[in-house]
Amino acid sequence: MKKSDIVVIGGSAAGLTAAITARRHYPGKKTLLIRREEQVLIPCGIPYIFGTVGAPENNLIPDALLDKNGIELLKADVGAINRQETLLETSQGDVGYERLILATGSLPTRPPIEGIDLDGVFTIQKDVAYLHELREKLETANDVVVIGGGFIGIEFADEINKAGNKNVTVIEIAPHCLSLAYDDEFCVEMEEHVRSRGITIRTSSRVQAIEGVDSVDNVLLADGSKIKADVVILGVGASPNVELATQAGLEIGIQTGAITVDRTMRTSDANIYACGDCAKKISFFGGAPSKLRLASIATSEARIAAANLYGIRRENIGTVGVWSTAVGNLAMGTAGLTETMARDRGYRIVSATVEGPNRHPGKMPGAVKTVLKLVFERNSGTILGGQVMGDATAGEIINALSACIQTRMTAEDIAIFQTGTHPALTASPIAYPLVNAAEMALGEMVVS
Amino acid sequence: MKKSDIVVIGGSAAGLTAAITARRHYPGKKTLLIRREEQVLIPCGIPYIFGTVGAPENNLIPDALLDKNGIELLKADVGAINRQETLLETSQGDVGYERLILATGSLPTRPPIEGIDLDGVFTIQKDVAYLHELREKLETANDVVVIGGGFIGIEFADEINKAGNKNVTVIEIAPHCLSLAYDDEFCVEMEEHVRSRGITIRTSSRVQAIEGVDSVDNVLLADGSKIKADVVILGVGASPNVELATQAGLEIGIQTGAITVDRTMRTSDANIYACGDCAKKISFFGGAPSKLRLASIATSEARIAAANLYGIRRENIGTVGVWSTAVGNLAMGTAGLTETMARDRGYRIVSATVEGPNRHPGKMPGAVKTVLKLVFERNSGTILGGQVMGDATAGEIINALSACIQTRMTAEDIAIFQTGTHPALTASPIAYPLVNAAEMALGEMVVS
Repeated sequence: MKKSDIVVIGGSAAGLTAAITARRHYPGKKTLLIRREEQVLIPCGIPYIFGTVGAPENNLIPDALLDKNGIELLKADVGAINRQETLLETSQGDVGYERLILATGSLPTRPPIEGIDLDGVFTIQKDVAYLHELREKLETANDVVVIGGGFIGIEFADEINKAGNKNVTVIEIAPHCLSLAYDDEFCVEMEEHVRSRGITIRTSSRVQAIEGVDSVDNVLLADGSKIKADVVILGVGASPNVELATQAGLEIGIQTGAITVDRTMRTSDANIYACGDCAKKISFFGGAPSKLRLASIATSEARIAAANLYGIRRENIGTVGVWSTAVGNLAMGTAGLTETMARDRGYRIVSATVEGPNRHPGKMPGAVKTVLKLVFERNSGTILGGQVMGDATAGEIINALSACIQTRMTAEDIAIFQTGTHPALTASPIAYPLVNAAEMALGEMVVS
Repeated sequence: MKKSDIVVIGGSAAGLTAAITARRHYPGKKTLLIRREEQVLIPCGIPYIFGTVGAPENNLIPDALLDKNGIELLKADVGAINRQETLLETSQGDVGYERLILATGSLPTRPPIEGIDLDGVFTIQKDVAYLHELREKLETANDVVVIGGGFIGIEFADEINKAGNKNVTVIEIAPHCLSLAYDDEFCVEMEEHVRSRGITIRTSSRVQAIEGVDSVDNVLLADGSKIKADVVILGVGASPNVELATQAGLEIGIQTGAITVDRTMRTSDANIYACGDCAKKISFFGGAPSKLRLASIATSEARIAAANLYGIRRENIGTVGVWSTAVGNLAMGTAGLTETMARDRGYRIVSATVEGPNRHPGKMPGAVKTVLKLVFERNSGTILGGQVMGDATAGEIINALSACIQTRMTAEDIAIFQTGTHPALTASPIAYPLVNAAEMALGEMVVS
């Protein structure tokens, strides 16, 4: 029987990072990664297959990373975990383990919409062959409907629209696209930007049915309107893939449907860890279960799980939630809680928004308007979150903000935060947004 | 006699930020800013006057900021501080104060080089008329020599070189340009980049004399070689402008020549605060005096000084040192200590350098190689500093790093730091440089 000290199930962001981290921390342990896929896609890069990067093959996680890090690869389906015998039953025979990491990811949600099984209706699967099929369909499609105006929906719509010869419509059930990711004023800016690129957005719109004979013909909304569609893409979220864990009797969280783990990423079996989309997350803010699922969360969890396999050294502080979205030259990002999220969770907040050029003087080439909004807890002054809108630097500004949040800085700390500034790279030191927004918020705060 | 509750002397980054902050924190106090200049230049933007932005007038701090914040402006020379009477003797009459903030800045160093007074030899002064004169001279110059290969020297050289019709030479006394700002491997990359743009760099070169009759003709190096020059620009640093403070009997630091302040930015007179280039700085690392002088440090100090005027609420944690440099599309930045600085100060360090594309997949448009180097204290694992090289996002990556440093994160903390990632904006979550470099360093560290 094949046997490895450490076995990781799953080859995407979480699984690969877990295996690499395991090798770094335990170079003496044999490490095996088992996955089903022939090739592994970069999950967040999937929308770009349909425009910017041109093909699934241009968006792969290279297997060279496995070789380079001394990780053995087994392409197989895992049928069951035999916890008693500490072995896996796979399509390639049994595989013994000493420590197991589950990184089985998530599966796209298939809402119970009439017509969802029609030809031409796609979910977003991390599967090269499936995405090739979607690409082929899109080549001859005139009318494309994307159901779900979250990150993925918006980015898919924009990439497909780049071809220029299609009618692309995004249908969102909420009053605004991206409303789970940004406060309304940011959502509105992105919606306007997306519309200006020729995409139709229909918000507050519920899909009643997908209609057609054999293949899709149109999408019927609850208000009776019909939108012509040759291809429908469902981007309405994903659910933890916990089939194996459930069969093996591991504890599954009721609220999240994900594998229960403690702060060390250990499951209810001391030899089994879980990380990524399949693992239960709790929020950094208050500790309630969190439904956020992102590759960057997955990799952070993977680094905790793998380092802890033979001796606990890392604890998960909870999911902060840091992400960004880019369409054309407009980028926005969030770290921590938006104002809406903070209020919904019961925080009493102070927020401040500043706006200005992201270069100095404003006449420097490349200068664009940057908007930064910070949200603080009113009494302690602790930073709860922030959102930024600007150019590509927004993607790193939220990482600076993430550091402030993870270390529980207060508005007072951020007001005297030492930043580096440069005319060609950042806003002016006199008006650096992070610092200025903190000062503004302090003006409205009674710090205890 | 004119009287104001709060008086700020100096209208550049520190003075303006101090006045704005004073108004935010003490809206009931009359605030007056006294400055000598008709118009105030953005200090870090000065090199760009000679190329990118085209004129000193395109690089001004708008006086509208004063009006908008309810700050009175007096354009006058301050001749003396009468501490007994708490008043200033100015060219426009006496001005009484309750609290005084000195933000008198720095003056360019004029090294005792023979020929420094020849026509055509310029220092870098924050003075519109003087910079106009330099611009005019440059219009007819064929050969330009910049003495000093620090930030300012390199950026001046590149901007002047953009005109395309001049021979521009940078002379640096150290073995590498920018060696006070970056470790050698980064300096070398920037030197190569600057040379590839047609600029001559001569390192390890000492200037013996500036030669000419009336106006400059050439620069004579210690090795005997002569470099033709119609214009010479001296970018060899600046010294604190402490004339007023010295006359008034305030304590001046012996090692730095700057006005002594405590952590609240108060001088030896309880009613007088100082901030910016004129104020003494101590390092965040160990607390020894620091000679760093940057606009971003000045504004942070200004926010501390002004908030403390009528009740102490902020303390300076010491100068971390965060900066960046950009030439064309290449940007680099430092936060905290470089490896060289850390070793020089006696730290036992572990460093790790990672390199990879700053987008994912690497085929995304705009992806360029990014290099990140982190330096940790070997025993505690505390982050001491980092350097990054890449595109414009480098300017914000060092701000994320600055947050990690200011909160004294360890390699273990940074290894599980929660970042946001996006294909079009950042490196991949599997290989996010900050996190990966921390993991690599941990591999070589015995964390106590």
